[in-house]
Amino acid sequence: MIVVLAGGVGGAKFLDGLSRVMGDERLVIVGNTGDDLEFLGLHISPDLDTIPYTLAGLVDEEKGWGLKGDTFSFLDMLQRYGSETWFRIGDKDLATHVFRTSLLRSGLTLSEVMRRLCASLEVKQQILPATDDPVRTKIVSDDRLLDFQDYFVKKKYDVNVKNVIFEGSESARPNPKALKALQDSRGIIFAPSNPVVSIGCILSIPGFRDAIKESGARRLAISPLIAGKPVRGPADRMMSGLGIDPSVIGIASTYRSLIDTLIVDKADSSLRDRIRGLGIEAIVTDILMGSLQSKIKLAELALQTLEV
Amino acid sequence: MIVVLAGGVGGAKFLDGLSRVMGDERLVIVGNTGDDLEFLGLHISPDLDTIPYTLAGLVDEEKGWGLKGDTFSFLDMLQRYGSETWFRIGDKDLATHVFRTSLLRSGLTLSEVMRRLCASLEVKQQILPATDDPVRTKIVSDDRLLDFQDYFVKKKYDVNVKNVIFEGSESARPNPKALKALQDSRGIIFAPSNPVVSIGCILSIPGFRDAIKESGARRLAISPLIAGKPVRGPADRMMSGLGIDPSVIGIASTYRSLIDTLIVDKADSSLRDRIRGLGIEAIVTDILMGSLQSKIKLAELALQTLEV
Repeated sequence: MIVVLAGGVGGAKFLDGLSRVMGDERLVIVGNTGDDLEFLGLHISPDLDTIPYTLAGLVDEEKGWGLKGDTFSFLDMLQRYGSETWFRIGDKDLATHVFRTSLLRSGLTLSEVMRRLCASLEVKQQILPATDDPVRTKIVSDDRLLDFQDYFVKKKYDVNVKNVIFEGSESARPNPKALKALQDSRGIIFAPSNPVVSIGCILSIPGFRDAIKESGARRLAISPLIAGKPVRGPADRMMSGLGIDPSVIGIASTYRSLIDTLIVDKADSSLRDRIRGLGIEAIVTDILMGSLQSKIKLAELALQTLEV
Repeated sequence: MIVVLAGGVGGAKFLDGLSRVMGDERLVIVGNTGDDLEFLGLHISPDLDTIPYTLAGLVDEEKGWGLKGDTFSFLDMLQRYGSETWFRIGDKDLATHVFRTSLLRSGLTLSEVMRRLCASLEVKQQILPATDDPVRTKIVSDDRLLDFQDYFVKKKYDVNVKNVIFEGSESARPNPKALKALQDSRGIIFAPSNPVVSIGCILSIPGFRDAIKESGARRLAISPLIAGKPVRGPADRMMSGLGIDPSVIGIASTYRSLIDTLIVDKADSSLRDRIRGLGIEAIVTDILMGSLQSKIKLAELALQTLEV
């Protein structure tokens, strides 16, 4: 069994490749819920949803999230009502949020909801929310505290990040299935996701760091940065804001003691020895997942490295 | 001021005509909430919504309800999740329900929500829910109790109606603005809506019958039946089920002591004297609202009859 810790688009792309080179039932995904939001009373889990959408082949590949061929009539009408519409929900995508919210209100946990959604989309891999308790990533920007999606979508992350807070994290109970999977796994992979807010949020929940450290599994991370830049998103600017070197060295420092190996891009090959100096093996390859072929190659390399 | 008691499609069509021949601020509409439903946690008010959709010129004219040019992506996706999809919500229409539900949860009353929705759609007539308290029409069919929309939409009213119950009606507080409007009005019109479940539900709420009886206004109804048949819906079958003659005579009996005049179709001219025998003046005209012109003619006749 392989456990992958994953955030949104980068994580989902990696999982797309991985799902094509290993058995569905052997792949367990632990997903970030820190970017979940309530919008007009609907519970939306953007990172979690991107994963089954991707694995079911339904994702809008151009954007990397949302559903392909979706329409936006709901938002058009909502705009007439003067409601905020910066969070771009498509009409099909909305079905996920309305259905999830209704199941949550009926008493199901987020894990149970994900299991039902995945079964309907014929996604056979286990997708486990890191916790069923509410954890909300907040961005401290100068003197303001922003909800994550406000920072990420509305403000297009064009603000300074002074600190990141995972509200509710301290008292959140880790998903017991996720901890058990980490314990039992042969390999643990940190997907190429934002180390601060995606993987970082999962790791902030009590129990995850210890479970990873104490696991007998081989553990590797794939860098979300190439030459100091993420393919998308604000990882580099966030890392800088928090005083972390926005480079594979910063990634290695952040994951120190949690991973044995870091897969980095050729563009960062000169930093291999400095990574090794942190007690982490560095493997250099092409990590840009521009095509299905490149996703599969990266997944195969990850599995080889884990020797599973 | 004119007050119109109205249900769904028939009522809205009549109001479409009426709104074109009188000032917006003089028209107060009291709407039925008995067919409201909760669907996946969303509060839907089908009868109420049809009115502003119609008055704003947004209604799907072919169906008589819903929004024109709407898409159905939400329902398509919902079907993948195995959810019931017999209640046909379009994607734009859904915005109304999601927005309403969110405002209700934030503490607004249904009246306040309607005011906001109407303001956004630039509908200037007052549309008042008969009550802000939950009243739900239930159909007693043989040995089963059906929710109204289950009976009406899912079962396409193809079941026997033994009785109709307005759950919550006894303890529902009538909308004080509606009572005040009835008191102050120069004319009261019962729109050509289902007398059992649309107008009947409004009248079941304590205070409405007395307010209408005690009003100094002239009061008229437009028959929803032509030669014993409704233009759409189950009014005739419901009336039969409840032991009411499914004809303009049954309509006149049902509204006895509440109206002075009943407008009926030419097809029912032979029943004029029997209506008069019930103490109700009968006016005969073409009541089928097949065109805008026919709606306007009917509205003009109603206003003339009320002498306003």
